Amino acid sequence: MTFQDEVCCLFSFRIPTSVSFEIISPFCDISVLYRTNASTLSCPYKLSIVCVVSLTLCPNLPLSSDYDLSYLSLRTSIGLWTAFLCLVLVATDASSLVCYITRFTEEAFAALICIIFIYEALEKLVHLGELYPINMNNKLDNLTFYICQCSPPVNATPEIQQVWNRSGVAPESISWTQLDVDECSSMRGEFVGPACGHHGPYIPDVLFWSVILFFTTFFLSSFLKQFKTKLYFPTKVRSTISDFAVFLTIMIMVLVDYLVGIPSPKLNVPDRFQPTSENRGWLISPLGTNPWWTMLAAAIPALLCTILIFMDQQITAVIINRKEHKLKKGCGYHLDLLVVSVMLGVCSIMGLPWFVAATVLSISHVNSLKLESECSAPGEQPKFLGIREQRVTSFMIFILMGCSVFMTSVLKFIPMPVLYGVFLYMGVSSLKGIQFFDRIKLFCMPAKHQPDLIYLRYVPLWKVHVFTLVQLTCLVLLWVIKASAAAVVFPMMVLALVFIRKLLDLCFTNRELSWLDDLMPESKKKKEDDKKKKAKEVRVQLFSRTTAESCDSPTDTFPLFPWLQEAQRILEVEEGIAHPYDGPGILKTLKVRLVVGDNSDAVYQCPLYLEEVTAHSP
Amino acid sequence: MTFQDEVCCLFSFRIPTSVSFEIISPFCDISVLYRTNASTLSCPYKLSIVCVVSLTLCPNLPLSSDYDLSYLSLRTSIGLWTAFLCLVLVATDASSLVCYITRFTEEAFAALICIIFIYEALEKLVHLGELYPINMNNKLDNLTFYICQCSPPVNATPEIQQVWNRSGVAPESISWTQLDVDECSSMRGEFVGPACGHHGPYIPDVLFWSVILFFTTFFLSSFLKQFKTKLYFPTKVRSTISDFAVFLTIMIMVLVDYLVGIPSPKLNVPDRFQPTSENRGWLISPLGTNPWWTMLAAAIPALLCTILIFMDQQITAVIINRKEHKLKKGCGYHLDLLVVSVMLGVCSIMGLPWFVAATVLSISHVNSLKLESECSAPGEQPKFLGIREQRVTSFMIFILMGCSVFMTSVLKFIPMPVLYGVFLYMGVSSLKGIQFFDRIKLFCMPAKHQPDLIYLRYVPLWKVHVFTLVQLTCLVLLWVIKASAAAVVFPMMVLALVFIRKLLDLCFTNRELSWLDDLMPESKKKKEDDKKKKAKEVRVQLFSRTTAESCDSPTDTFPLFPWLQEAQRILEVEEGIAHPYDGPGILKTLKVRLVVGDNSDAVYQCPLYLEEVTAHSP
Repeated sequence: MTFQDEVCCLFSFRIPTSVSFEIISPFCDISVLYRTNASTLSCPYKLSIVCVVSLTLCPNLPLSSDYDLSYLSLRTSIGLWTAFLCLVLVATDASSLVCYITRFTEEAFAALICIIFIYEALEKLVHLGELYPINMNNKLDNLTFYICQCSPPVNATPEIQQVWNRSGVAPESISWTQLDVDECSSMRGEFVGPACGHHGPYIPDVLFWSVILFFTTFFLSSFLKQFKTKLYFPTKVRSTISDFAVFLTIMIMVLVDYLVGIPSPKLNVPDRFQPTSENRGWLISPLGTNPWWTMLAAAIPALLCTILIFMDQQITAVIINRKEHKLKKGCGYHLDLLVVSVMLGVCSIMGLPWFVAATVLSISHVNSLKLESECSAPGEQPKFLGIREQRVTSFMIFILMGCSVFMTSVLKFIPMPVLYGVFLYMGVSSLKGIQFFDRIKLFCMPAKHQPDLIYLRYVPLWKVHVFTLVQLTCLVLLWVIKASAAAVVFPMMVLALVFIRKLLDLCFTNRELSWLDDLMPESKKKKEDDKKKKAKEVRVQLFSRTTAESCDSPTDTFPLFPWLQEAQRILEVEEGIAHPYDGPGILKTLKVRLVVGDNSDAVYQCPLYLEEVTAHSP
Repeated sequence: MTFQDEVCCLFSFRIPTSVSFEIISPFCDISVLYRTNASTLSCPYKLSIVCVVSLTLCPNLPLSSDYDLSYLSLRTSIGLWTAFLCLVLVATDASSLVCYITRFTEEAFAALICIIFIYEALEKLVHLGELYPINMNNKLDNLTFYICQCSPPVNATPEIQQVWNRSGVAPESISWTQLDVDECSSMRGEFVGPACGHHGPYIPDVLFWSVILFFTTFFLSSFLKQFKTKLYFPTKVRSTISDFAVFLTIMIMVLVDYLVGIPSPKLNVPDRFQPTSENRGWLISPLGTNPWWTMLAAAIPALLCTILIFMDQQITAVIINRKEHKLKKGCGYHLDLLVVSVMLGVCSIMGLPWFVAATVLSISHVNSLKLESECSAPGEQPKFLGIREQRVTSFMIFILMGCSVFMTSVLKFIPMPVLYGVFLYMGVSSLKGIQFFDRIKLFCMPAKHQPDLIYLRYVPLWKVHVFTLVQLTCLVLLWVIKASAAAVVFPMMVLALVFIRKLLDLCFTNRELSWLDDLMPESKKKKEDDKKKKAKEVRVQLFSRTTAESCDSPTDTFPLFPWLQEAQRILEVEEGIAHPYDGPGILKTLKVRLVVGDNSDAVYQCPLYLEEVTAHSP
């Protein structure tokens, strides 16, 4: 039993809601609703996406059983210390430090979480291969001899004797061949026969059926999600299918699995609402049977926990609050952290998992709330308008999660591979919005095929590659540390990302970094860039002409020549077509907005000759 | 054993090349190279894509064993009659009738063949479910009792007694539980135990592994084929991967299957070069043991065979010779049919399958030889330039097919589900070019999303739907007849398609039919249509102006006013921009090509005012 399993079994209540833990995150997480606005408490809450701390850190704490300590109590004291430290962070305005979390840090962290999702989904599938071993070298002609029976152990060690004594059955009186798999294992019998794997009989069909369920779920949900942009069926039908893509997929797969009837691994749903272990109550004492000094020593691991929780919570909040999401309601870094710290204390005392904003789920929630323009023309891409900022969805999510207590009879039909397939889908679809991955793709893309990305216009390709490589190295380091024995320093490494980003100031100019690592949304930047170019072009035209007198200035206070001087600061240009008048064939008008002396804008209407326009237009 | 299996086993030589039969077509077909040019025998052969007759008809001949006739001999006489009738068709210039095979007939037939491919691929997969039964309601806990042993039959019928006597083994001396699956079946033993299906033990894992192989092959080959239009890697790499998509897929899947080691069904490769049955020699007599009148009676089924072979051969030839393929070398309907009839005779006497152009394979071959413009801009669609018309590819295909005699040790590693996946891929990818399916898609496409198809511009949507429905009805009828007991009239039904198309003349105007059922390629039509529209627009402009005198006519022989009269027949218009001159601000010139009195073209240069142009431009 791994440490993580232990955490799941011992420290979460054995309530059916723990189902959601497994559904939602590979770390036995749970999603929880709150997300408030600290700066303006009177303003309504904005969209609420907050999930649980990944238990990444916990496996690195020295296992208390090695030191004869009560793990539950030790964890409670660490949790209480962490809650206290988080409260201190709230009180000291530490959340203002999030300004140092740039896109570089955000994306490396978000990418790590996505990759963990994908990796865990695949790993769990591989793990099924161990749980359900198959016989790869089966001889179909010998299927009549194909059996795996229970038999008495060849070597009855004292340990096995003890098991027999405890069960109160004499080993001689057992008819071994009549034992089923479970009984044989519990009596420490051995499996003998051509149909036996290492630890028991080969299990036919289940593994491959799981593989089919897994990949079908992944591809079906991807297909249904993309259904929105297909040409078939009315918009209403398409968007409904797209919105409920994952739900529909799970429904379909459960039905298929039920009809085929293969005993695939199903969601393990507890049927009673009670603590997971009989040795613990509903509340945990922070001292318990431990010596008094553990209460103080817990402060050291709590420091690491605090860093991790702070980083995890705030990076997710920064990602959600990105300008490109066009959120209208304010952000609440301080109040968010306050609620996290209070919940930390409550959860610690009740022996529940710790809560913090979960990156992938939060991104998924925001994506699902995106408001897009209705497009009527075929092939037109819908335009992003904003997020439907409300609390109904989050509220309903957790109401439904609570209702899962009454849905155990339905939930137990859900095959695990289908859920793993959903994990894979969530991980892969969250990768899409991450610019870091777009830059990785550039590595195997010939220059002529590269998309017109804004940073490629201003930063040399090799420098973009260097930036990507640094980020990639950080990601690999994070992964290695997370997976290795050094996992205890993982929170430090996440913090180190911020400093590594600061070091990049030495190799890159500020201008380059502003293109590669700016929070400004890509599309807006490009539009502005285009406008600037146009303005420059027009400036060239205006300077090269002597007939500029014909421009009508909006007021008479500015003389015309200074106006031309000011044209260096032309902001935007709109083209129009004017009917020819009794002059030398004027064809186009230019509406020029420019910054004048007192920093206010002024709009000039300016006619231009045709030759000039055709000569400069692309 | 089905009839088709029987045909495969008895009437094709048991040579390793029969492998290719199964690889290439679900009808035990073989592809053969020739395709010549009848009209101009001196001109070099053009691309050669000809394959085998589907054995669609044969299963409908009354099985000769029912009438105590030798099937082989009967088939030979039918084949010889068919060869003769085909020769008569060649001599009587019957191939000129192909002008009645319009797109309507072609596409209904091609669609049928594609659907047969898809259906057969899926059916064979379903058939694997019968060959490799799985236990759907397995209780994993009882796997220790999970066995299917051989036991003596409960009811030793006289027939079974006879089998025992023949094998020379006393039933009492057989230790039944020691028999393997094959031995048990041959001794007519019964399978008893929880691991037994209807006809033998359940076979673990093989079915689901086959399903995985099947769909992975299909999706992988589709993915690799589309690799050409991806943005990654240099063009060379991408086009190589795309060109060898199916080959690469088969290689990968064989390797995966080999590594996993599940005993999936493999290609059954004979190891000796000999006739398939010991009761037949290399040559078959058309009379054999049959009574003399069978030689004459064979003419009646031969008539049906002739219709089928003629239609199959010529429809395929018409599809290949379509204008949109831009073939440069001439077509050879007569010589093609001559070669088919000669080969028919040879194959009949040798008891080989009959050869005819195979639709799906021919389309695939043409598609793979397409010459496309190199596109350098990202996202640019490659332009179709023509077909690489040569004989190297066909020649190499059949050289390699011949070499398969020496590749039996490699070929026997190819799992059948991989080949079925390739069938599915071929069927689905051939559907793409068929306009009929584009029209079927229109049924579930809202009007605003419909692509700008040329026929939608001129034919009301409901009439397009009626046309599609008629075609769909024909397809369903063909399918029902092919599958039902009435299959003997299938060739008549194919012929009937031509007459049904003729009947459509009553419901549709000629103009509508020319849009829906013309052999002219879509894109060219649209371009011409655009040109015509432009011409009409310009005509309106020209007529509405009084300053047309300023147009300079190329010669002075035509007076200007008749020129305007003639403008009704303006052919094309090119726009240009002229620098303004000392007149009333002329901006655009129009180069107008028009048909003048003596049917020769004349090009006029005509200036136009700006207002006029902006008023009419889209």
